Amino acid sequence: MTDSRLTSSMARLLAVLEPHAVVTDLYSERGSEVYDAMTRGDDSEVREILRIGRRTEGRILELACGSGRLTVALGRLGRETVALDSSPRMLELLEGRAQRAGAKVLPVLGDMSAFDVDGSFGLIVLAATSITLLPPPRRRTMLEAVRAHLAPDGVFLVSVHSTGAYTGGAETRLVPLNADPVEVVILDEQVDSTAGHRDVSVLHLRRQAGVRTTEVFASRVNLLDETQLRAELSTAGLRVRDAFPVRLADGSQSLSMLECVR
Amino acid sequence: MTDSRLTSSMARLLAVLEPHAVVTDLYSERGSEVYDAMTRGDDSEVREILRIGRRTEGRILELACGSGRLTVALGRLGRETVALDSSPRMLELLEGRAQRAGAKVLPVLGDMSAFDVDGSFGLIVLAATSITLLPPPRRRTMLEAVRAHLAPDGVFLVSVHSTGAYTGGAETRLVPLNADPVEVVILDEQVDSTAGHRDVSVLHLRRQAGVRTTEVFASRVNLLDETQLRAELSTAGLRVRDAFPVRLADGSQSLSMLECVR
Repeated sequence: MTDSRLTSSMARLLAVLEPHAVVTDLYSERGSEVYDAMTRGDDSEVREILRIGRRTEGRILELACGSGRLTVALGRLGRETVALDSSPRMLELLEGRAQRAGAKVLPVLGDMSAFDVDGSFGLIVLAATSITLLPPPRRRTMLEAVRAHLAPDGVFLVSVHSTGAYTGGAETRLVPLNADPVEVVILDEQVDSTAGHRDVSVLHLRRQAGVRTTEVFASRVNLLDETQLRAELSTAGLRVRDAFPVRLADGSQSLSMLECVR
Repeated sequence: MTDSRLTSSMARLLAVLEPHAVVTDLYSERGSEVYDAMTRGDDSEVREILRIGRRTEGRILELACGSGRLTVALGRLGRETVALDSSPRMLELLEGRAQRAGAKVLPVLGDMSAFDVDGSFGLIVLAATSITLLPPPRRRTMLEAVRAHLAPDGVFLVSVHSTGAYTGGAETRLVPLNADPVEVVILDEQVDSTAGHRDVSVLHLRRQAGVRTTEVFASRVNLLDETQLRAELSTAGLRVRDAFPVRLADGSQSLSMLECVR
């Protein structure tokens, strides 16, 4: 329970609800399942990505695809779609989603900061601000790999928090997942501007047949805003051709989607 | 548990944590105590109110004073300060606060939409957007009573949500209250623009000697923004002389403070 990655409010809440709970990584096997349930029905960024994606040609690569919330939409474009993630469980969940949706997707287990896939891509996507999962040195190698895998007329779409969107402090969301058995998630985020990271704590509560289960997951991501990312893209030889704001489905944060070319 | 005033997310959370919990009004005796604990240390609006208050002369009246978060600051101005609230428990808590702070305050039990206090006041305060506790007909009688109790050069200070600040939807906060015994509050708000109200659900969780207690409180307030309030003030014969933005301590919402005269 004394996991330093928990937000201070979540640590206090856990001390009331389940003082002996063990904190698990959000990208663990079980964390992946909860993450998948949380993102079901979330269509943030889908429209924006498809609008740009339709203007591109050839194979599609999605980095940090997770359980395939966006991959499935990309797969429906009918082009070869490769989905890369570092969590085997996320890729299993993605295969299930893709099958149910009739989308053709090729899951690949790998590290987005050091990937090497045969051939080039007309569209590479790194959405949901997942670029913040990487510290600066790995962002650099990731962007180099993106550039190396981009077709001459290919587009790299990456989303990031708009500059100034993070004012610090905390943000909480209460997300009902399921009615029977009843399942709820409490998500709490806390920005530490000095340390340069943001902690995300996810509490999953479930009651079935009178028994309550409490699970808690944590993830620490790096702070990165549009201004800084633009500088890093430029260093990696990627040019921002267009940028547009994206609003998350729950209206909670403002993102920028950058459309980059070689 | 099927209290229709609970936000939908809070109802779901309760179904996991305490399916048989009884929902109590936030202005009940016990609700008053939790409200008091939640507002401890919150200094929202204090600076703005004192800045204007110092420019006025004579007796001070605070409407919907609650447990005295602002009253105590007003009482320190050294002028006769009358504090009106409809909850006896809130006024008890206020007396304790005032005593500890050495502020001279006169608590009065009453309904702010139909009050009658002897004499007139140089400053009347209705802060914390508590005007939204009243439906339109009672806002009208409250504003008439304010006008009747205002000295010729008196000032009425009232805070309200800035126009456009409510986009609908839900907002959640996770508030640690105390470390030992550990106490946490989860506050969830939900706006129903069609019905014209906002529901506030407060879940209070506490663990002491291994025993967890769960209490839940609800309050339904009316939607009212600055544009509408300005119209109602004008109808009641109160002129807005100045208006300035107020940011809550937790940065969560934008308020406007209106400085009104006869």
